[in-house]
Amino acid sequence: MRKSATLAALLACAASAPLAAKEGMFTPQQLPEIADDLRATGLEIDPEALSDLTGFPMGAIVSLGGCSASFVSPQGLVVTNHHCARGSVQYNSTAENNYLENGFLAKALGEELPAAPGSRIYVTTALTDVTQRMRAGTEAMEPTERYDAVEQRMKDITAECEAKAGYRCQVASFYGGKEYTLIERLEVRDVRLVYAPADSIGKYGGDIDNWMWPRHTGDFAFYRAYVAPDGSAADYAEENVPYAPEHHLKVSASGLKEGDFVMAAGYPGSTSRYATLAEVENTFSWTYPTYVKLINDWIDTIEEAAPEGSDARVKYESLLAGLNNFEKNTRGQLEGARRVGLVDRRAQREADLAAWIAADRSRAAYGEAITGLQALTEESAAEARKGFWYNFATRPALLSAAQRLYRLSHERQKVDSLRAPGFQERDMTFFRQGLQALDRRYDAGVDKAQWLLFLDSYLDQDNRVAVFDNALGLTDGMSDAALEAKLDAYYAGTTLDDAETRLSLMEATPAQLEAMDDPFMKLAVALYEYERGLEDASDERSGRALALRPAYMEAITQWQASKGVLTYPDANSTLRVTYGTVLGGSPKDGMAYLPFTTLEGITEKDTGEDPFNAPERQLKEIREKDYGKYYSEDVGSVPVNFLSDLDSTGGNSGSATLNARAELVGLLFDGTFESVNSDWDFDPRTTRTIHVDTRYMLWVMDKVDGAQGLIEEMDVVE
Amino acid sequence: MRKSATLAALLACAASAPLAAKEGMFTPQQLPEIADDLRATGLEIDPEALSDLTGFPMGAIVSLGGCSASFVSPQGLVVTNHHCARGSVQYNSTAENNYLENGFLAKALGEELPAAPGSRIYVTTALTDVTQRMRAGTEAMEPTERYDAVEQRMKDITAECEAKAGYRCQVASFYGGKEYTLIERLEVRDVRLVYAPADSIGKYGGDIDNWMWPRHTGDFAFYRAYVAPDGSAADYAEENVPYAPEHHLKVSASGLKEGDFVMAAGYPGSTSRYATLAEVENTFSWTYPTYVKLINDWIDTIEEAAPEGSDARVKYESLLAGLNNFEKNTRGQLEGARRVGLVDRRAQREADLAAWIAADRSRAAYGEAITGLQALTEESAAEARKGFWYNFATRPALLSAAQRLYRLSHERQKVDSLRAPGFQERDMTFFRQGLQALDRRYDAGVDKAQWLLFLDSYLDQDNRVAVFDNALGLTDGMSDAALEAKLDAYYAGTTLDDAETRLSLMEATPAQLEAMDDPFMKLAVALYEYERGLEDASDERSGRALALRPAYMEAITQWQASKGVLTYPDANSTLRVTYGTVLGGSPKDGMAYLPFTTLEGITEKDTGEDPFNAPERQLKEIREKDYGKYYSEDVGSVPVNFLSDLDSTGGNSGSATLNARAELVGLLFDGTFESVNSDWDFDPRTTRTIHVDTRYMLWVMDKVDGAQGLIEEMDVVE
Repeated sequence: MRKSATLAALLACAASAPLAAKEGMFTPQQLPEIADDLRATGLEIDPEALSDLTGFPMGAIVSLGGCSASFVSPQGLVVTNHHCARGSVQYNSTAENNYLENGFLAKALGEELPAAPGSRIYVTTALTDVTQRMRAGTEAMEPTERYDAVEQRMKDITAECEAKAGYRCQVASFYGGKEYTLIERLEVRDVRLVYAPADSIGKYGGDIDNWMWPRHTGDFAFYRAYVAPDGSAADYAEENVPYAPEHHLKVSASGLKEGDFVMAAGYPGSTSRYATLAEVENTFSWTYPTYVKLINDWIDTIEEAAPEGSDARVKYESLLAGLNNFEKNTRGQLEGARRVGLVDRRAQREADLAAWIAADRSRAAYGEAITGLQALTEESAAEARKGFWYNFATRPALLSAAQRLYRLSHERQKVDSLRAPGFQERDMTFFRQGLQALDRRYDAGVDKAQWLLFLDSYLDQDNRVAVFDNALGLTDGMSDAALEAKLDAYYAGTTLDDAETRLSLMEATPAQLEAMDDPFMKLAVALYEYERGLEDASDERSGRALALRPAYMEAITQWQASKGVLTYPDANSTLRVTYGTVLGGSPKDGMAYLPFTTLEGITEKDTGEDPFNAPERQLKEIREKDYGKYYSEDVGSVPVNFLSDLDSTGGNSGSATLNARAELVGLLFDGTFESVNSDWDFDPRTTRTIHVDTRYMLWVMDKVDGAQGLIEEMDVVE
Repeated sequence: MRKSATLAALLACAASAPLAAKEGMFTPQQLPEIADDLRATGLEIDPEALSDLTGFPMGAIVSLGGCSASFVSPQGLVVTNHHCARGSVQYNSTAENNYLENGFLAKALGEELPAAPGSRIYVTTALTDVTQRMRAGTEAMEPTERYDAVEQRMKDITAECEAKAGYRCQVASFYGGKEYTLIERLEVRDVRLVYAPADSIGKYGGDIDNWMWPRHTGDFAFYRAYVAPDGSAADYAEENVPYAPEHHLKVSASGLKEGDFVMAAGYPGSTSRYATLAEVENTFSWTYPTYVKLINDWIDTIEEAAPEGSDARVKYESLLAGLNNFEKNTRGQLEGARRVGLVDRRAQREADLAAWIAADRSRAAYGEAITGLQALTEESAAEARKGFWYNFATRPALLSAAQRLYRLSHERQKVDSLRAPGFQERDMTFFRQGLQALDRRYDAGVDKAQWLLFLDSYLDQDNRVAVFDNALGLTDGMSDAALEAKLDAYYAGTTLDDAETRLSLMEATPAQLEAMDDPFMKLAVALYEYERGLEDASDERSGRALALRPAYMEAITQWQASKGVLTYPDANSTLRVTYGTVLGGSPKDGMAYLPFTTLEGITEKDTGEDPFNAPERQLKEIREKDYGKYYSEDVGSVPVNFLSDLDSTGGNSGSATLNARAELVGLLFDGTFESVNSDWDFDPRTTRTIHVDTRYMLWVMDKVDGAQGLIEEMDVVE
């Protein structure tokens, strides 16, 4: 009978491999504290080196804002995920040059294309602890005063930092306001697209494989950072030159095997590991189930209003993709929460923490803070539920634009430093881009269908907002036809669907906007005071949280320290390091994920139809087993994607995956479906992160896309 | 960091286990020919014993007609799948006693309930080779004459055999008419339901888990065979007594572990392993894709016409379940065919066979037969495509009933032995039952909606049937409304929707039926001659095949023998044995199936909602780890389902799964999604069969359902 040696090799598992993941998204500064475990897990370079953000290797790690990336050549070549650069591929695509379909490769510097408007590469240049300045005296303040003080100090510190031209600064809050760090970043504004494989490689598997293992996605693409000839950040200009980073990563062509040490450095966006029980309960028993239902209805509404193949559909493809992604993620979180018993586990954690506090009278203040935080969380959750449908009911694109413009007209009455965040001069580039880009994602028919959907649920609520009902003329028992006729008048009577009009209104005064005859602007004006009231109440609650949450996090930190566990802060889009090993797993009883996928898995999945339509050239190379030097004995082929037990979340996309010597061995691009719940509660059994293997990246560049020039530009090491 | 010893154990795979499945559904008589491999694979009893159908253990194996089963006590206790006995549970369920929901357990013989009408237990009592009598002189005949002779001889031999009261006989054709076996079976007609767990155990996972691994289905149930006090087969009667089988299986409470020898004995229905290239091409490029599209439309049509919760829906639940099952299976076959390159593989096999034939001039006759068979297959495929939509367009339930009745009125003009199969006296019990049961699966509104759907596609075809068009009054470009009005008249004007009417017409003459004013009967009469013409043409093709296919199979057999491979016949609902080992697998690149699932997988899957709504009592026992003596060290729990590399297909459901000593260790109940394509082309890498473990069966009986009485009745061995 036929036997398969390859399978036998795949299934024979290293008895020594750990089978549970390591929790922790550590700040680089924390790493020396866990140097022993880093070394024990396999790190070969000095753990201290990882805490030097401007040294090697961390100096090579950059942010794209929402995605992570890294320098891989001395000429500013940056590698990230395909899905992080895809907007730029789309931006440059035309009917004749469909780069999404065919991929894009610049054969020389001069052929590189400008990335989509707003694309940035942020190179961290300095970190400063500003906790003292941020918190001084705030404890004694009233909540709103405290909130305002913290916001103002953030703006002031940011403004001082940004006095240095070409830099973008941020004051990041850690542990719920317990610590603050000023992050100074060079803002590279001339970003160019160098190379992206076709969607049929870079997005292989599409929505179907999203969050899934086994995976075969070539989720990599290359940008290049350009600066002015003098080295300073500059807008796109022909005379600009490639940026010369201080450090870049070597790219490994020999890769990893199961059980090897691996780490990733990137910018995870947001986690809720320290959320209180009330927040967990509200999210999983109300918010998420409500979202899943709503998102499904919303998707149906868009698909009906914008049929496949219509011009409108093109405008909503990106929203649809986002909604599908969000829906699948949320469903995964709900399933995961049920599986691990999230609510019970959180209740247990709070009980254990309470017991630890009760065990020592000196910890009494923690207990008071926690009681206060719990009450506050319940209050916030109740407010969020109350406002949920109002927020959707006020979501029409032109109403949002009108609200932003009217708010801006008020903020512009103040000196810049006192304006609300998002309305300062430093924000105006993105503000303008947002108003401009609206056209590409707006269709009146679809917008109206969405609005009707949201209003339908809003009208069912007890918590209606009188000012909104009055302004829109909503009455109980009004017919669908009457409601629709009302909305039709909004779309027929507005001029805000014109980009020039919207942009011109950035200069308007409140009085000028109030005098406009535009129905959306009228509605924005009518809601203004009500929304300011909501904001004030929210700020007041945030002000209270700023006094309570640091104490809560201090309690958690002390309590965990008493058990020998180092507490890391929740993800906040700042640079973090997670480490562990290459590791398969058993996401479900009776099933196992193997740690690597192979080229042959592509032919196995391929149907010839999107999203399983690998290029014929690639399929031919696979059939001919043209593995080149990217072959792995362990898997009997070229590895395509691999799994690790790293701790990651959204925003980590594009993160450099490094081996024990800090060489690039992959790019982090996803988590498994069973992992998404780890945003709230890290489940060591199921949490697995998905990476594209550099051997696959190099194989595609070499054998499929003819990108030898780029391979030569990089330091490829065996 | 947390580690999981159980997981480690699960993942540590036996290096010695084979990783590819063994092909072969062998007849018991073939087993001595492969005695060496049976012993090498692990069989401990004498392989010769397996070929004695009335000895141990084969004497304990029975057929339910469509499902397999086995005796497990000296008092006629029969174990089979839950899904094979579920019709009887449903038949006995009422609103007050919902046995589907609550399960059913007779605490004493007197509480056992009659199985659904038509339920049978067939105990094979003798096999006789009748090849000589069946084939003598047929080679020289013309095709239609040959077909008629074979059919008449089958009927004659069957009639002689059934002269013995209480027996049901069958002449089975093997290798496409190369060999014939007369199977004599005691027909137990008094079948009673003894025990079936609730759907929430026996059907756990429902349609979602159907064909899927990991699996956690308690797919077992118990019948008891009853006979007259004198031991003869009899209809249900109170004085009947449990049948005393000559042999019954011992039930193992210690079960299997990965790599252990395992075999299953049962009645696989149909495979197409020796289908020619033309047939494969037609099936996978036309028939199956057409079916998938049609079945999905059909499901939508029924769901729309019979909304959830309606009375009509109840009548169509079983058809819907069947359509869903068929659709998923067909989709799996299409995916599998693509994955293994079925068409290319079959073309290669035919080329290799042709080369073997060409290598020796004495084999020339094989070549001619194959050429003839290929042409015939193409002809048959073309006819099947031509008639495909006509067959659906004539599918309304009452039209089918009218057609059967009108055919019967003609057949009844002949002496019984000359009537067509299905219309002889021996068939009348099931014929009557069919007419009676129609009511339970018929709703005029749904039937009409289906008919409209089928007519819609029929009308699009070039190959329209004039006699049908004329009889129904179909014209080109007729409006939907006109068509619907036409059909309405059929449903309004018929009396065939009354069961009594239908049954009374079993006695009618052709003239009486022709005189009826019933629109469906009129249509049946109008189509009669056309359909007889189709049948004659089909019989003529079958007559040709009867001369060609035996030669083709002889060529295959000789060719394979030259390579040391024993050729087994395609499945034909006769008793077969398949053997191999307990074995996980890698159905897809990057993923592995572990060989066992465990109780904990049930709590992991459970959502509390159908089909993942295990009884609270069961969940509690699992939480409390009340494993009893059914615990397996290897999996760290009670094993629920397991995988093997056995070769099985539809009809194998309920098959006894036996260990090396022929003790019952499980019940075969499904194949994995990646296996279904093996009906056409056995893929040793992916083919896996799913069994329920006797340890789980006994655990449920002991800990959940309190069926200790039955456990005591069986010979449970450690």
